[in-house]
Amino acid sequence: MSRPRITVINPNSNQVVTDGLAAALRPLMFADGPEIVCETLQEGPFGIESQKDADSVTLPLRRFVEGDNASSAFVIACYSDPGLHVCREATTRPVLGIAECGVLTALTRADSFGVIAIAQRSIRRHIRYLRQMGLMDRLAAERPLDMTVAETASGEGTLAKMIAVGRALKDEDGASAIVMGCAGMARHRKNLEDALGIPVIDPTQAAVTMALGAVAFAG
Amino acid sequence: MSRPRITVINPNSNQVVTDGLAAALRPLMFADGPEIVCETLQEGPFGIESQKDADSVTLPLRRFVEGDNASSAFVIACYSDPGLHVCREATTRPVLGIAECGVLTALTRADSFGVIAIAQRSIRRHIRYLRQMGLMDRLAAERPLDMTVAETASGEGTLAKMIAVGRALKDEDGASAIVMGCAGMARHRKNLEDALGIPVIDPTQAAVTMALGAVAFAG
Amino acid sequence: MSRPRITVINPNSNQVVTDGLAAALRPLMFADGPEIVCETLQEGPFGIESQKDADSVTLPLRRFVEGDNASSAFVIACYSDPGLHVCREATTRPVLGIAECGVLTALTRADSFGVIAIAQRSIRRHIRYLRQMGLMDRLAAERPLDMTVAETASGEGTLAKMIAVGRALKDEDGASAIVMGCAGMARHRKNLEDALGIPVIDPTQAAVTMALGAVAFAG
Amino acid sequence: MSRPRITVINPNSNQVVTDGLAAALRPLMFADGPEIVCETLQEGPFGIESQKDADSVTLPLRRFVEGDNASSAFVIACYSDPGLHVCREATTRPVLGIAECGVLTALTRADSFGVIAIAQRSIRRHIRYLRQMGLMDRLAAERPLDMTVAETASGEGTLAKMIAVGRALKDEDGASAIVMGCAGMARHRKNLEDALGIPVIDPTQAAVTMALGAVAFAG
Amino acid sequence: MSRPRITVINPNSNQVVTDGLAAALRPLMFADGPEIVCETLQEGPFGIESQKDADSVTLPLRRFVEGDNASSAFVIACYSDPGLHVCREATTRPVLGIAECGVLTALTRADSFGVIAIAQRSIRRHIRYLRQMGLMDRLAAERPLDMTVAETASGEGTLAKMIAVGRALKDEDGASAIVMGCAGMARHRKNLEDALGIPVIDPTQAAVTMALGAVAFAG
Amino acid sequence: MSRPRITVINPNSNQVVTDGLAAALRPLMFADGPEIVCETLQEGPFGIESQKDADSVTLPLRRFVEGDNASSAFVIACYSDPGLHVCREATTRPVLGIAECGVLTALTRADSFGVIAIAQRSIRRHIRYLRQMGLMDRLAAERPLDMTVAETASGEGTLAKMIAVGRALKDEDGASAIVMGCAGMARHRKNLEDALGIPVIDPTQAAVTMALGAVAFAG
Repeated sequence: MSRPRITVINPNSNQVVTDGLAAALRPLMFADGPEIVCETLQEGPFGIESQKDADSVTLPLRRFVEGDNASSAFVIACYSDPGLHVCREATTRPVLGIAECGVLTALTRADSFGVIAIAQRSIRRHIRYLRQMGLMDRLAAERPLDMTVAETASGEGTLAKMIAVGRALKDEDGASAIVMGCAGMARHRKNLEDALGIPVIDPTQAAVTMALGAVAFAG
Repeated sequence: MSRPRITVINPNSNQVVTDGLAAALRPLMFADGPEIVCETLQEGPFGIESQKDADSVTLPLRRFVEGDNASSAFVIACYSDPGLHVCREATTRPVLGIAECGVLTALTRADSFGVIAIAQRSIRRHIRYLRQMGLMDRLAAERPLDMTVAETASGEGTLAKMIAVGRALKDEDGASAIVMGCAGMARHRKNLEDALGIPVIDPTQAAVTMALGAVAFAG
Repeated sequence: MSRPRITVINPNSNQVVTDGLAAALRPLMFADGPEIVCETLQEGPFGIESQKDADSVTLPLRRFVEGDNASSAFVIACYSDPGLHVCREATTRPVLGIAECGVLTALTRADSFGVIAIAQRSIRRHIRYLRQMGLMDRLAAERPLDMTVAETASGEGTLAKMIAVGRALKDEDGASAIVMGCAGMARHRKNLEDALGIPVIDPTQAAVTMALGAVAFAG
Repeated sequence: MSRPRITVINPNSNQVVTDGLAAALRPLMFADGPEIVCETLQEGPFGIESQKDADSVTLPLRRFVEGDNASSAFVIACYSDPGLHVCREATTRPVLGIAECGVLTALTRADSFGVIAIAQRSIRRHIRYLRQMGLMDRLAAERPLDMTVAETASGEGTLAKMIAVGRALKDEDGASAIVMGCAGMARHRKNLEDALGIPVIDPTQAAVTMALGAVAFAG
Repeated sequence: MSRPRITVINPNSNQVVTDGLAAALRPLMFADGPEIVCETLQEGPFGIESQKDADSVTLPLRRFVEGDNASSAFVIACYSDPGLHVCREATTRPVLGIAECGVLTALTRADSFGVIAIAQRSIRRHIRYLRQMGLMDRLAAERPLDMTVAETASGEGTLAKMIAVGRALKDEDGASAIVMGCAGMARHRKNLEDALGIPVIDPTQAAVTMALGAVAFAG
Repeated sequence: MSRPRITVINPNSNQVVTDGLAAALRPLMFADGPEIVCETLQEGPFGIESQKDADSVTLPLRRFVEGDNASSAFVIACYSDPGLHVCREATTRPVLGIAECGVLTALTRADSFGVIAIAQRSIRRHIRYLRQMGLMDRLAAERPLDMTVAETASGEGTLAKMIAVGRALKDEDGASAIVMGCAGMARHRKNLEDALGIPVIDPTQAAVTMALGAVAFAG
């Protein structure tokens, strides 16, 4: 009997990001557990930084899901959760978004959470989405790194900046857990958590964990 | 290197319930994954059906957690999440409650959820707790089976009753996912889901899944 | 000096609907007021009845807006407000959605409002959107006609069905105003209002009114 | 056939304010559109700056409405919306308040809005009213000019002060649209909008626009 | 040294109601406690059943408060809390409303409360007021007796009707305490409580209790 | 006929605190009113400063209530309201918490309230509890004294510190009433109120007032 598969879709076309996801998810790849596969959405833009970028991948994501009969669950690995509802409409298999799962997981670790966004202009979109999910009551604040996705991916100073923003969320806004508001920050999770002394959630790890549960207990 | 351990604590002293938990969690026990151990709280009452029952286990649960240095995470397996905050105060290791994780997991599968409670009088406690968590916005309704914990554990008619209550939650209240509001209902999950045609969440499975993620990605 | 133009975009490709919009908006076409033009989105599906339909028009709507330098404001005439945010990202000119404007206008006429949806399955999408807008507090209920867009557009029994659903919203749910949850119901507004004895809002008329204000006072 | 009439009632007895309203509304006075008439409530105080001032005009406003059979709709032009409910009780014709319409119109232009109040002590009354309307979720903040109504009407420094307060609302509180919290600020709207780079809503213009829609589509 | 005085103002001009208030408050009239005096607002209408009735007493109530230098606290004894804010603006002495105090007191006795209103048309006003106070979260429902104030005051069948409505609030809506939504129902409180088996709150008694505390501890 | 008794339970074992409660409640001890008795919970810790402290008194409080047949009502005099629900489960007699009554009483005196907590780490527990009660909407902020219970009880500088924190709540957070978030601050109430110029609520006085009303009107 074959292992069930969870497919993590990176909706941008940057293979480096996809490879980073795979590396970040390795601790959940058990020999006798579900297979976890990370795929790049070929039609995606190189990065998702605007509403246009997000809206441009909704139907490609749906086609991806419809065309994939081998997977038992899907994770959309972009912190705007693009296409989540249109993909769910297409299948009864679980389709999870990393933003929703990141926030929901933070709620299990602390009374209030802060979010580190990459850019100021994403915050409005994220807040609108939190309101849509009915999950505003425990948000402490969201603050931007004010870096591009590219800079956060490569830059040396990223961790230092994340620590500074995380401290502001903790000390000034009262956050007692942090959600990293981007799919590409996973490798800083542990260092950031150690520096801040409060739980730090990588949203992709959170979502794939929940997908693994959905798949494991489906039988 | 030894595998990290997740300890699931059944706060009632009914070993049959603990054994049921272990059975329900088997699909998450991977050879190279975290060890999942189910323990019975010896000081607990035979069932937790009242606020008094719930309050009677808070300090014993804390002592359990404080006395257990071998576990990397804990799950309190009672749908009232007794002692959650007092245990969290005692350790920085993750302590998860099945009620919170059950509801949060339901939010990844549907826009609104219903809860099947065992008894009418638990509902007020559950609602108060949902309000405490700030998670009321997507609750469709909670309805009771009007059975004792013992009856639900053993009774033949339990599944039929659960299906009837689940249908009311779906058709009359508009729930599009169901949370089973008790630690002892797991073996009915699949049948209930098949009968209702919407996702059904076992809260212990949900919580242990999230514990597994917390443990797996701790490094 | 030329009159400013408001362009109302019907995101489905059914010209009959577009013509109906133009007819419904005639009372707002003043000789010395803004020009009101109704356009059909050629790339749109014949009707927008699913999330897929809605998501399929977001980028075409944006291209429409970007390609139209002659209009001072835009109205997206579909009760799911597809593409609203992606269009707003593309221009500083006002882009209004008929769902938001219909609901906001209802709030000026009554303490609580009900919505008549065409199909049951749209309701979940609408509720999610109301939550996103932070406008749930005064919703009495939303109820479906359980007809297709085509049926409501043509059918003889539509008004009778709308009156029945409107009465349930008023008498059972306590609504004191009604929003017609579709762009194609305008010709029934007056009859429905007379039958129910409470204000009935056509969302396209509401949105174009607000667009007219935005344009008139822009100078 | 005669044109329908919208009567805008200035509930204070300052004719200069009434004249200002008429000037501000000129762009909505179409030759073949509804007639827009601005009237001064003779019984009103010279300015409405306290709860007592607001409560003193409720019954005079109602008598005005009851005594006016020629108008198709009414707008109460004071940012406290005094007498709104008692007037609505007296007639089925639309009675609109500028505070509610100002806020609702802001919601069509941005995710969160700020309010510029004249005096600190009005803010508590405004917040209470926003809570009554169920519209708090998208409020960024309200800040005072700390000027009297008289000063704002006449003073040279008013615009500069409004820009400073508006910048604080935008930059510190995150507002992405501004509502001018007074009936007498209309002539600064365009300059303030240009200075801030985000939409600025004059509440009287917003309310008369919505009244115009209600009247135009009544037939 | 003289005893401090609490003045309870019946804002309608029906002396029978005022006498009923005095009788209902006797248990709180302690020999060495604050003096409790019930007064009739001479300018008031015979009953307060509409928004117009409520608005007609706001300024008379304020004049009453301003003209009374002998009282240490005031209670406005009408379930619409007319004039509450305009009276508070006039004095730093406590001015309490029976609706707010009735609801707040119910919150100390049960997780959710129901309200028995006299007439259907008051309910909308009450709900608007609950929303203004930010106290909707624990409302089970409000249901009307569908009687006039006069009928409830005199009628034989009042208690039976109250029990029927109270049972519906308890059994169908889930209320676990009841607020009597009128100043003139006090003499039925005990019988209603006995019949329903859950706490029943008379709002005037609740408000005068809170006034007594404010006065007793002022020193 | 004997006077009904209200028993105020100090859940910590510090008799000095109990004596302070009795002194603070003297103004409510009327010769012909209910007897007010303050008792020390012998099993309690010396102070309640943590979740563990709070949870350690829940069952002792219940046993106290169950063993006391002479009292007509109980007040739990600790600002965490420990054991409130488990005590209510044991009796139909009123059991009131000082935190809930303090906040509810503040809502009768101002539109928004601030809370002075003793320690930073209590604030999270208090906020969680406010959310549980559904009373967040009118909270301005909670700020800590950053003193131990012992320091506040004895220290000379306590009042000065309370005034400083109270001013921050009033001026920076917009609070228009203050709740003292501890049972042992009563003797500073008047001085703090005089210094701040806004109502200051002692929660024990508030709760015993409400208990007195419940008892007085029980007949």
